[in-house]
Amino acid sequence: MRLAELSTRSGVSTTTIKFYLREGLLPPGRRVTATQSDYDEGHLRRLRLVRALIQVGRIPVASARDVLAALADDRLSPNERLGTATWALPHGPAPDETDPAVEAARHTADELMDRLGWGRGSTADPLPTAPARGTLVTAIAALSRLGYPCSAEDLEPYGRAAERIAATDLDMVERYGTPDEQVEAAVALTVLYEPVVLSLRRLAEVEESHRRFVEE
Amino acid sequence: MRLAELSTRSGVSTTTIKFYLREGLLPPGRRVTATQSDYDEGHLRRLRLVRALIQVGRIPVASARDVLAALADDRLSPNERLGTATWALPHGPAPDETDPAVEAARHTADELMDRLGWGRGSTADPLPTAPARGTLVTAIAALSRLGYPCSAEDLEPYGRAAERIAATDLDMVERYGTPDEQVEAAVALTVLYEPVVLSLRRLAEVEESHRRFVEE
Repeated sequence: MRLAELSTRSGVSTTTIKFYLREGLLPPGRRVTATQSDYDEGHLRRLRLVRALIQVGRIPVASARDVLAALADDRLSPNERLGTATWALPHGPAPDETDPAVEAARHTADELMDRLGWGRGSTADPLPTAPARGTLVTAIAALSRLGYPCSAEDLEPYGRAAERIAATDLDMVERYGTPDEQVEAAVALTVLYEPVVLSLRRLAEVEESHRRFVEE
Repeated sequence: MRLAELSTRSGVSTTTIKFYLREGLLPPGRRVTATQSDYDEGHLRRLRLVRALIQVGRIPVASARDVLAALADDRLSPNERLGTATWALPHGPAPDETDPAVEAARHTADELMDRLGWGRGSTADPLPTAPARGTLVTAIAALSRLGYPCSAEDLEPYGRAAERIAATDLDMVERYGTPDEQVEAAVALTVLYEPVVLSLRRLAEVEESHRRFVEE
């Protein structure tokens, strides 16, 4: 398809597509004349992913480029590519190692992983170094510094809910046919479902608060 | 207690406390001499909340002020104060009504609420106008525009997980003794547990992806 059709089908303006091509976020099309190139379904899929990362995920262009580079590295298995791409997504603040609350928070996070049975046994286990693990430690340190509940026991139900959400996430990913599509969908859905998860939690809190404090 | 003790016990510098007092985020202490005021446990609790909103929740000072004003409005019941304060928290982007995907997204959100049995029956029901509902509609519109799954059926498991998370949230809130403390804790925990929920989801995805794609 030509640039105009790629634009119509993706809903992304030709100016923006040209910007993505120039920035290397989208691979060049197959050149057909001096001024025209041809694009395929792979371009359309990649364009949707770029759009999702930048517009919905509010991910900086440089991070999006890192994520896409990881996705494209076919020396890696699909599982490794997914891990590397997720690593490259922006994360919350890393733990401040000068903060005395951080060491205790790291122990709480370790205890929580044990309780949940996550990352057990494998020496190649990526969980201890995952950036999300750092975000979790930072959050635990903040909660404890402010005197809010955050023991491994307090956090376990959130981990159990996260397990069910992750199973749903990966069921959705497995609907995609090829490993390439699955890896792209996993990254896109990880980012795109964050506002869904957070907004549903707030709506569920309104529901539950009404049930407990008004109806009774 | 004096300012120095409030600073030690809260871990917030005296300079920052003075800024919060000046900006009206913290009520003035009881004046004891021309240069000294006395602060109580209420100040300490309020300071923790302000800190949580601004530092961990990354909420602008002006929004934090709105949240605190809602919390302080004792003409309202605790449930109403909680609702008003949560309304004042920053939310994701509101739906763009000029976007044709938004009307369909709104129907999907309605259908999802029906499936979940949320906000049923009550005419005083706040859910249809909750800002989180707008965030949900925006997210659904983006998912559908990009061709990712987002039917009410796809979203229902996320709603069920959100119900369990909200029940855990409110169990935690009910540990606090007075309605004032409960309302403050509910707002703080809503904000402070967001990074916990998101980071645990990403860690659970690594676990689940390893289980499905490596171990099998």
